[in-house]
Amino acid sequence: MSLQEQLTGIARRSREASRKLACLSTTERNAALLAMAEAIEDASGPIREANRADLEAGRKAGLSKAMLDRLELTGMRITAMSRGLREVADLPDPVGRVLDERTRPNGLRLRKVSTPLGVILIIYESRPNVTVDAAGLCLKSGNAAILRGGREALRSNRILARTMVEAARKRCEGFPAEAIQVIPVTDREAVPILLSMTGFIDLCMPRGGEGLIRAVTEAARIPVIKHYRGLCHVYVDRDAADGMAVSIPVNAKTQRPGVCNAMETLLIDAALDRSIAARLLATLLGKGVEIRGDDHVLQLPERDSLPEGARLVPATDEDWDTEYLDMILSVRMVGGVDEAIEHINSHGSGLAEAIVTGNDETARRFQNRVDASAVYRNASTRFTDGGEFGLGAEIGISTDKIGARGPMGLEELTSYKWLGFGRGHIRE
Amino acid sequence: MSLQEQLTGIARRSREASRKLACLSTTERNAALLAMAEAIEDASGPIREANRADLEAGRKAGLSKAMLDRLELTGMRITAMSRGLREVADLPDPVGRVLDERTRPNGLRLRKVSTPLGVILIIYESRPNVTVDAAGLCLKSGNAAILRGGREALRSNRILARTMVEAARKRCEGFPAEAIQVIPVTDREAVPILLSMTGFIDLCMPRGGEGLIRAVTEAARIPVIKHYRGLCHVYVDRDAADGMAVSIPVNAKTQRPGVCNAMETLLIDAALDRSIAARLLATLLGKGVEIRGDDHVLQLPERDSLPEGARLVPATDEDWDTEYLDMILSVRMVGGVDEAIEHINSHGSGLAEAIVTGNDETARRFQNRVDASAVYRNASTRFTDGGEFGLGAEIGISTDKIGARGPMGLEELTSYKWLGFGRGHIRE
Repeated sequence: MSLQEQLTGIARRSREASRKLACLSTTERNAALLAMAEAIEDASGPIREANRADLEAGRKAGLSKAMLDRLELTGMRITAMSRGLREVADLPDPVGRVLDERTRPNGLRLRKVSTPLGVILIIYESRPNVTVDAAGLCLKSGNAAILRGGREALRSNRILARTMVEAARKRCEGFPAEAIQVIPVTDREAVPILLSMTGFIDLCMPRGGEGLIRAVTEAARIPVIKHYRGLCHVYVDRDAADGMAVSIPVNAKTQRPGVCNAMETLLIDAALDRSIAARLLATLLGKGVEIRGDDHVLQLPERDSLPEGARLVPATDEDWDTEYLDMILSVRMVGGVDEAIEHINSHGSGLAEAIVTGNDETARRFQNRVDASAVYRNASTRFTDGGEFGLGAEIGISTDKIGARGPMGLEELTSYKWLGFGRGHIRE
Repeated sequence: MSLQEQLTGIARRSREASRKLACLSTTERNAALLAMAEAIEDASGPIREANRADLEAGRKAGLSKAMLDRLELTGMRITAMSRGLREVADLPDPVGRVLDERTRPNGLRLRKVSTPLGVILIIYESRPNVTVDAAGLCLKSGNAAILRGGREALRSNRILARTMVEAARKRCEGFPAEAIQVIPVTDREAVPILLSMTGFIDLCMPRGGEGLIRAVTEAARIPVIKHYRGLCHVYVDRDAADGMAVSIPVNAKTQRPGVCNAMETLLIDAALDRSIAARLLATLLGKGVEIRGDDHVLQLPERDSLPEGARLVPATDEDWDTEYLDMILSVRMVGGVDEAIEHINSHGSGLAEAIVTGNDETARRFQNRVDASAVYRNASTRFTDGGEFGLGAEIGISTDKIGARGPMGLEELTSYKWLGFGRGHIRE
């Protein structure tokens, strides 16, 4: 059997499974999730055994320490996966929500209800916990999942998927065996083949580095929801309150610099009080942030007053487009809110942007005109995530505008259909 | 300047225009639409002159009579375009709707509001009225439009776009000159280049035959919303009311057979009263519908009682997957609602499906399990359109599940963003 045939078989069975999943009730789907949670804890012995085989092969193949760490399933991580499934079972059902309801002048009643998407393909790198998290969220929303993880985690991913499906089938009659399928081959050719299956797969969500995501987008014929990167800005306006002018940028940069909603560029209003601006920079430098500033910024702090070892260097053009994911920050002085908006709309990634100001008019202008999934006034960009938004669970984050934008919860894994109720209605 | 450079310039200016459009108020956008409506009527002389040049060139190039008819802008068609713009101005603003509002336990307020998508690329065939309709709907929803019409309509499309933009700029300060751009080249190479501009174009909507749409989908790196075709079914259940069992299928097939929401396959429950089934077939045959039936269907009508010239022939396997768009119908007998659902989910295009039944349980099963954008009980599939749904205006129809499904109104041309309102909120 060719790879194409093998993958077509998997995708077709996934489509069939999705039809069966769509028939399960809320209660049945939640019962399946709870059974899976239990089974994963019960099977922690065999799961860790399979994982050890992956780790050993990874070591032999020369995987980095960081990759091996991501690959490892400790007892704590197994418990966390199990707890995650229970939490998902507790969330409200995203399927069957009534989104619109109307009766037309001719008496035809229409109801728009949320439905599963169908089949979701997740492409990800080495963390095997994604297998459980993603499959759980897909199942909760009535979708079949096709999982393509990293080749180094194949043994772990397969036993996790098998454990989940077997448990669900024991608990819930009619649960389809192909609801969760792990692609069993590590062949690189598999990905473009899967991404071309417009008839069987409704959505692809790649999770990983920018390289992976660009390759997926390039090859895909099916819809892809993704975010390439987060290049977030904070603009400190002339009317910023003294304390927030320092605390918000410092939080946005340093609280967790390696994540996509951390600040990468700070924009300072040229009309901001010089002493506030200098204190802001000194605080960042004091926290160990390397600042790459434009000419105006470099002249701001008094050189004598800089903390020892402070790194304050000139920015190059490239810096305005760089996502450091590190304790490095580019800083530019701008002539007010309009220049800030212009800079952000030219260089931002459309994920999260913030203004610090006490001026309502300025804030409104910024929030209206900045084109990003989340635009904050007087709050850190770091709040941009499904948990902080109260979406219940996050399956990803999107800088696209079609289908989902920003943090994606369960609702973003649904589509809708219109139900029409007639009494013999025909069109004249 | 290479084609690539020329098109990149157009797309970049469209992105810039979209930023300016997003700043216009509802009143300004509506005033621009009304000015456009007036200008198109005032310029009907020069518009018809340009159109005559297109028609003449088309005649020389050997365009079919049908194509020339679609291309022609009569006085009535110009008036209709103008009226369309006025109607769009009257519709509620799809931008700025509050979709969600929540205050988090930490006091951070979040508001989800609808926004324009940005830049929309429309690819279409010879009808120049699409230029005005699509540009009007894009403008109403705050989007910039890039229009790629058929080469045979280029003169007409360019003067229409120029007339609209000039009128809007006279009426509304700040209206960007590049809000509506017609691709000025007819080079076939232009389309794949445009479809790869992920940084500048947010959505492509192809409108035309299945060939055009497949070519666009194949080449696109940007999101595409589309429908390939409509292969719609009506299932007449054993519990169908006598009158509706005939009137609904007849309406779905014959009221306008050339459109995507017309019925192409009729499914008859084997347990339906034989006399009703025979009358249904006789009525269809009497209306001049060619029936391609399976063996059971062929035996249904009494041969002697058939109307003169009735065409009743055996169906082939291919018929179940054929969109005739004509007075031809495939008819199959099925063993009840589950077999009907199975047939529809295997052969349907996911657009519109209907059941005729008086049984609530059967209807619920059908409406839940059939996977399509619109699923009717006791109503004709022909209601599947933006006007009949009361969506105000229809820009297209989608058999996709991401972004939009079914009839697309103005709301489907919007995205959203989250506005966050803090009081110095930082993440701990």
